[in-house]
Amino acid sequence: MLTGIHILFVGGDARQLEVIRKCIELDANAYLVGYDNLDSGFIGSTKVELLPETLNKYDAIVLPVSGVDEKGFVESIFTTHPVQLKESHFTYLKKSCTVYTGIANQYLKEICSKLQIPLIPLMDRDDVAIYNSIPTVEGTLMLAIQNTDFTIHRSNCMVLGLGRVGMSLSRALHALGAFVTVVVRKPEDMARAYEMGLNQLDLRDLKQNVSDVDILFNTIPHKVVTAEVIANLKPTALLIDLASKPGGCDFRFAEKRGIKAILAPGLPGIVAPKTAGQIIANTLVRLLMESNNTTGRGLH
Amino acid sequence: MLTGIHILFVGGDARQLEVIRKCIELDANAYLVGYDNLDSGFIGSTKVELLPETLNKYDAIVLPVSGVDEKGFVESIFTTHPVQLKESHFTYLKKSCTVYTGIANQYLKEICSKLQIPLIPLMDRDDVAIYNSIPTVEGTLMLAIQNTDFTIHRSNCMVLGLGRVGMSLSRALHALGAFVTVVVRKPEDMARAYEMGLNQLDLRDLKQNVSDVDILFNTIPHKVVTAEVIANLKPTALLIDLASKPGGCDFRFAEKRGIKAILAPGLPGIVAPKTAGQIIANTLVRLLMESNNTTGRGLH
Repeated sequence: MLTGIHILFVGGDARQLEVIRKCIELDANAYLVGYDNLDSGFIGSTKVELLPETLNKYDAIVLPVSGVDEKGFVESIFTTHPVQLKESHFTYLKKSCTVYTGIANQYLKEICSKLQIPLIPLMDRDDVAIYNSIPTVEGTLMLAIQNTDFTIHRSNCMVLGLGRVGMSLSRALHALGAFVTVVVRKPEDMARAYEMGLNQLDLRDLKQNVSDVDILFNTIPHKVVTAEVIANLKPTALLIDLASKPGGCDFRFAEKRGIKAILAPGLPGIVAPKTAGQIIANTLVRLLMESNNTTGRGLH
Repeated sequence: MLTGIHILFVGGDARQLEVIRKCIELDANAYLVGYDNLDSGFIGSTKVELLPETLNKYDAIVLPVSGVDEKGFVESIFTTHPVQLKESHFTYLKKSCTVYTGIANQYLKEICSKLQIPLIPLMDRDDVAIYNSIPTVEGTLMLAIQNTDFTIHRSNCMVLGLGRVGMSLSRALHALGAFVTVVVRKPEDMARAYEMGLNQLDLRDLKQNVSDVDILFNTIPHKVVTAEVIANLKPTALLIDLASKPGGCDFRFAEKRGIKAILAPGLPGIVAPKTAGQIIANTLVRLLMESNNTTGRGLH
């Protein structure tokens, strides 16, 4: 339980509602900034103003997945008023307060480092990335089905990378009857692809082996789908890039060749905000409980 | 091969292009009615008029999936002129000519029966229905992903019917990590669901067991998703009805209760016209070859 813990939620989207709901369920005291337009008031939550002098009461500050921008502004779909977290706000936080965010940018990192405030970027965690790969894969399947005139079943699918997303995606495509080739470099990834019943290709041999690919999925955050690779694709091939912006494809050249290429980061929040919110909520709550335990307030 | 066979294609959509392409590949002589606006002329095909006195040269007439309407009009997305097949047209066909269609309505059945013309409705075939279940499943996954804010993975999915579509769909949902319950009546279907690692439920016990269902998929072409069943669903549940029109759901009541319900027939032609066309093409060509062989023109 999170009894007696005071959490300030600053900004957010549909996902954050799941996080707030979960915290309240576990008896935390939830305070919301940037939720003026939220119709259905949460039982047990309190809408507050971002007044620096009130900030010393909180045990945790929870920011949305996007964190803050380079000027400290926090996105919120539930308000039309700008919400800005300035360095001065952070100086009022009590010593034991932790800041949780999805992504941490330079602005946030610098302030927290300077003021010695613990900062936890949830999206950097391996477990969160693996859980998130589930809605990412479903969003990817949706895109593949929408953007082709053939079935995934029996199509030639190539997946670049066998990381957290690559593994989930390869397995799903294989399960739907696609011919899946995993493109990796490390011998252990080759071995894993083999174990999974998938074809394997060395990334260094990519460009010579793409001529019969129907859908090329990239999960590698480096420029691996080069103009040379794209030049060898069929004109009807589809490119889906799941690597974080700016992706790993030469989009300019793909467009020039008339090959459909989709950069699709952030799928969990788009196709399954409820599940994506639950993933964050479960992790956050676990961390809050652990921290609560460690700091001697005791696990309720 | 289909060398020396004269086939008249009357009307069609993107799927029919695959059928025509395949027949030409196998050396058939293809003639097209209702394709005036088709830009890329097929090599080896001839655009013709629907003149009754010319119809005695054809070995096969191929209609689109939708067949003809109750007045004999044939749909074609490649012309703005109406194309109508009257009874008088059929009287000119030579004795050995066969009429292939997707669906056969009363109009077509009566004329062919009266004039003793062999009529083959391809969509009635078991093999075609099973092949078509593949794009149907992918279209269904797309709809499920688009219309929920949670993942298919770990959601409670109920599939009514374990026929040609029900089996493919259950397997795909299971493979994507859903909790799948198959709802059937026959003991052999119960056994098959068990073998597939799925939960089973007797259709007669449906209404008492839907309270935790996230997505209810119906494939049974009878009114099985009654108001009583819908009354017991969660307000956030999604209904997807794959049974042929008018489906098996009480859509009026679902709307009244505010439960999202989608009637989704004809998915193959929508989400994967190329694959759907290839399915028809493969079956048609096999039948034409068999017929060619039987009628003594010899297999080329």
